[in-house]
Amino acid sequence: MFPEKMNPLRARRLGIDTHHEPNIYLRSDSSVCKSEGFNSLTRVLVSTEQNHMIATLNIVTGDLIDEGEIGLSESAWEKLKLIGHESIWLSHPRPVHSLSHVRSKVYGHKLNEEQFSEIINDIVDERYADVYLAAFITACGDDKLDDEEITSLTRAMINAGSTIDWGLDQVLDKHCVGGLPGNRTTPIVVSILTAAGLTIPKTSSRAITSPAGTADTMETLTDVSLTLDQMREVVHSEGGCLAWGGSVRLSPADDLLIQVERALDIDSEGQLIASVLSKKVAAGATHVLIDIPVGPTAKVRDDEAADKLANSFKRVADNLGVTLAIVKTDGTQPVGEGIGPALEARDIVRVLKCDEQAPQDLLNRAVYLAGAMLDLSGKVSPGEGEKLARELVTTGKAWEKFVAICQAQGAFKEPPIAHYRYEMLAEKDGTLATVDNRILAKVAKLAGAPADAAAGVDLHVKVGDQIKRGQPMLTIHAEHIGELNYAVDYLQSHLQILTFGE
Amino acid sequence: MFPEKMNPLRARRLGIDTHHEPNIYLRSDSSVCKSEGFNSLTRVLVSTEQNHMIATLNIVTGDLIDEGEIGLSESAWEKLKLIGHESIWLSHPRPVHSLSHVRSKVYGHKLNEEQFSEIINDIVDERYADVYLAAFITACGDDKLDDEEITSLTRAMINAGSTIDWGLDQVLDKHCVGGLPGNRTTPIVVSILTAAGLTIPKTSSRAITSPAGTADTMETLTDVSLTLDQMREVVHSEGGCLAWGGSVRLSPADDLLIQVERALDIDSEGQLIASVLSKKVAAGATHVLIDIPVGPTAKVRDDEAADKLANSFKRVADNLGVTLAIVKTDGTQPVGEGIGPALEARDIVRVLKCDEQAPQDLLNRAVYLAGAMLDLSGKVSPGEGEKLARELVTTGKAWEKFVAICQAQGAFKEPPIAHYRYEMLAEKDGTLATVDNRILAKVAKLAGAPADAAAGVDLHVKVGDQIKRGQPMLTIHAEHIGELNYAVDYLQSHLQILTFGE
Repeated sequence: MFPEKMNPLRARRLGIDTHHEPNIYLRSDSSVCKSEGFNSLTRVLVSTEQNHMIATLNIVTGDLIDEGEIGLSESAWEKLKLIGHESIWLSHPRPVHSLSHVRSKVYGHKLNEEQFSEIINDIVDERYADVYLAAFITACGDDKLDDEEITSLTRAMINAGSTIDWGLDQVLDKHCVGGLPGNRTTPIVVSILTAAGLTIPKTSSRAITSPAGTADTMETLTDVSLTLDQMREVVHSEGGCLAWGGSVRLSPADDLLIQVERALDIDSEGQLIASVLSKKVAAGATHVLIDIPVGPTAKVRDDEAADKLANSFKRVADNLGVTLAIVKTDGTQPVGEGIGPALEARDIVRVLKCDEQAPQDLLNRAVYLAGAMLDLSGKVSPGEGEKLARELVTTGKAWEKFVAICQAQGAFKEPPIAHYRYEMLAEKDGTLATVDNRILAKVAKLAGAPADAAAGVDLHVKVGDQIKRGQPMLTIHAEHIGELNYAVDYLQSHLQILTFGE
Repeated sequence: MFPEKMNPLRARRLGIDTHHEPNIYLRSDSSVCKSEGFNSLTRVLVSTEQNHMIATLNIVTGDLIDEGEIGLSESAWEKLKLIGHESIWLSHPRPVHSLSHVRSKVYGHKLNEEQFSEIINDIVDERYADVYLAAFITACGDDKLDDEEITSLTRAMINAGSTIDWGLDQVLDKHCVGGLPGNRTTPIVVSILTAAGLTIPKTSSRAITSPAGTADTMETLTDVSLTLDQMREVVHSEGGCLAWGGSVRLSPADDLLIQVERALDIDSEGQLIASVLSKKVAAGATHVLIDIPVGPTAKVRDDEAADKLANSFKRVADNLGVTLAIVKTDGTQPVGEGIGPALEARDIVRVLKCDEQAPQDLLNRAVYLAGAMLDLSGKVSPGEGEKLARELVTTGKAWEKFVAICQAQGAFKEPPIAHYRYEMLAEKDGTLATVDNRILAKVAKLAGAPADAAAGVDLHVKVGDQIKRGQPMLTIHAEHIGELNYAVDYLQSHLQILTFGE
């Protein structure tokens, strides 16, 4: 409470990577532990003369830390912008009042915009330990938020970060509600729309629970960590960009929530809509297309669930003043061949270059979505969009635009290639009847995707294909032998990943 | 996957206290990180030649760890029973399959006994990181479990630990559904019942969200960490004991869940009933009294909520074959004067010694509960229990028993006294109208209770008392100046803790 009365501690970088949660390390016999009553895992306010943050305390016995020193994890070190030996003061943070709103939600009460704002602001200030984030995510899980609450949550997430005003009447954006491996249409759609003269400053997330997000995939092709000024420059010159949203602090709460959502693998309709629309509105979008793939092993399993989600999306978008179009697409099997950042990047390049190895399903899906967005924009007569979209690919104009955007973002580079492979061969003749997207995604993740950019799976067959015994069905790619073994083990105990029919 | 192929690492104790979650520390350039693809916060299976455990990995850059070494946190070190320089192998743990059941619960599905068993067994095996425990607790929060699920969860928690068979037809136990500061009746009730010749082998939890649990309080008076053999000996000689349940691994999942529940401060009807009844059944109880204090700022706020909880308790107890009696008691204000382990211990001793400073409300409450249990036992004619209970206190027989039990558990000792105090005086004359139990408990916790045994609050006034300006209303006790300041600051910004009426 009276940090000015305390003798400061000397900062020491311990080099411990605790991911995004900042950790500090103090000797058990340090006077501040005694005077302030700090224990292990206490949340502590850590201040320098310039900055401050909330961190989790670890008590150290033995000689790891000298007397008068405070150890800092990498994220703590970076957050305080330290160089070394700075003076550090510790004190109790104010109680996190917004946790009472999280509890209220657990008890089934409806939250208002002010309550969501308090929660989101505390999250952005990093006052929430991971267990609190886990409780908030779980309390909002499934469909426990109504449309009004989702609107409030979305507004709170927008207001807690930067927003971009492009000064234009029309700014396009799109989002695919994941669950379908591969299906990396966004870079193709952006190339087509910018080639058509429209504006689409695309910011994307990294993967939440999937083997790759658009940002992970694009990162294997160019630089995606753009500042807002860099984004403006790219969009000004090319009409669009393909950037990671996190580096410009659009809806920063989303990036913190996603880290824990990924660990928990819990999706929630409310968090999903708030995550998507907060990013879109913050990025200045006025016209948004939502693509919902539907299939028994996709994220959205049937038409009924898709319509429910679509209606909720529409009502929240209306509340926020966003023009929304929604398309349901086939989610019964992956789109494209590769699953994982670099493998999907390779497919995108092949489609845009009209390479003979290009996956036609990915081309067709991207052209369909770009067409729907051309229709939405009013750029063409209704129903004419798809034709124009296809022309822009076959004439090479979309590919030119793609290379130009990559170069404007830094440089166009080749995606990496994994060193370890495992090929799964068909054990009999037959017709491929089903693909289990969830098992496929899991195999790609176990192989190392998305953290290992070159890791993932190539699926060589499509539902309905006539398969011959001995034919390659899929290839696992990994950067490490341990992860390859792990993915193969899992695959071999989940052979229902591909089933044969008549 | 193939730990035998890996060169072992050398164990090094880092002395970092990460509480119950075991952590390990590896160099980022270590070959196992590369070959197995381990990243920061990966959950890793850590094996010695004798033991194994799941731990959370922290990646270390710089020279904190030597090549070929693995650093271990205190809890990791203890769990593997290391001495130093042992060989350690690392591998990927099997995926935690039971997390799919947690997700299923988030999505509102009902879980069966097998699913709860898988969850609880994985928790006891420490396969759940804290964020997973947080998600499970939140998903079961409020009244999201039905009676059948609570029964399944309770059975799973019983089966995951030790159980005690006393070989007796009747074994008594009691539990108070917290929320009321002070109210430390259990040690008094056990003394009365054992003085009456009944059997009550009492095991208690530490505090979950309150400033003290019975185990915390008893620990200031005697040793509560008894082995099962020690408990049997004490109960054999004295008819009862007052031990901490955690040290005999009765319902060990409960102890792990409580750690995170405490941080989240989320209570759930299902977890509450399962926690209480799993401990009781595992401890061999046949006849159980549940005390539910009811009041606007108690855990249970009104009669309706109390009756709902009581009915759920009864149905689950029926399913488990336990004879249950439930009493609702006055929860409008604290019982006794002290709030915090040592302060409550002092009140207990005063009541049992019939000291003139003994809080009469605590005596009356304990006598009422002990009476209800004498009635339940069939030891007296119905309605005669309370009279006998009071006699056993006034004749000093209960005090004799209490001292004998403490001595049988190790020794009877005096509770500690805090060095720092703050006294709040009345600023005007008036009649005390209300006490806010929640604010009071928060002040006691901010002062350091229960971790600091001597910390807490003495409440010197009762509702209805005529108060004079300048009269001491409450005293904060703290072991550290920082926590005293923190508690006083909170008190001064929450003066609605005590309100005056006509």
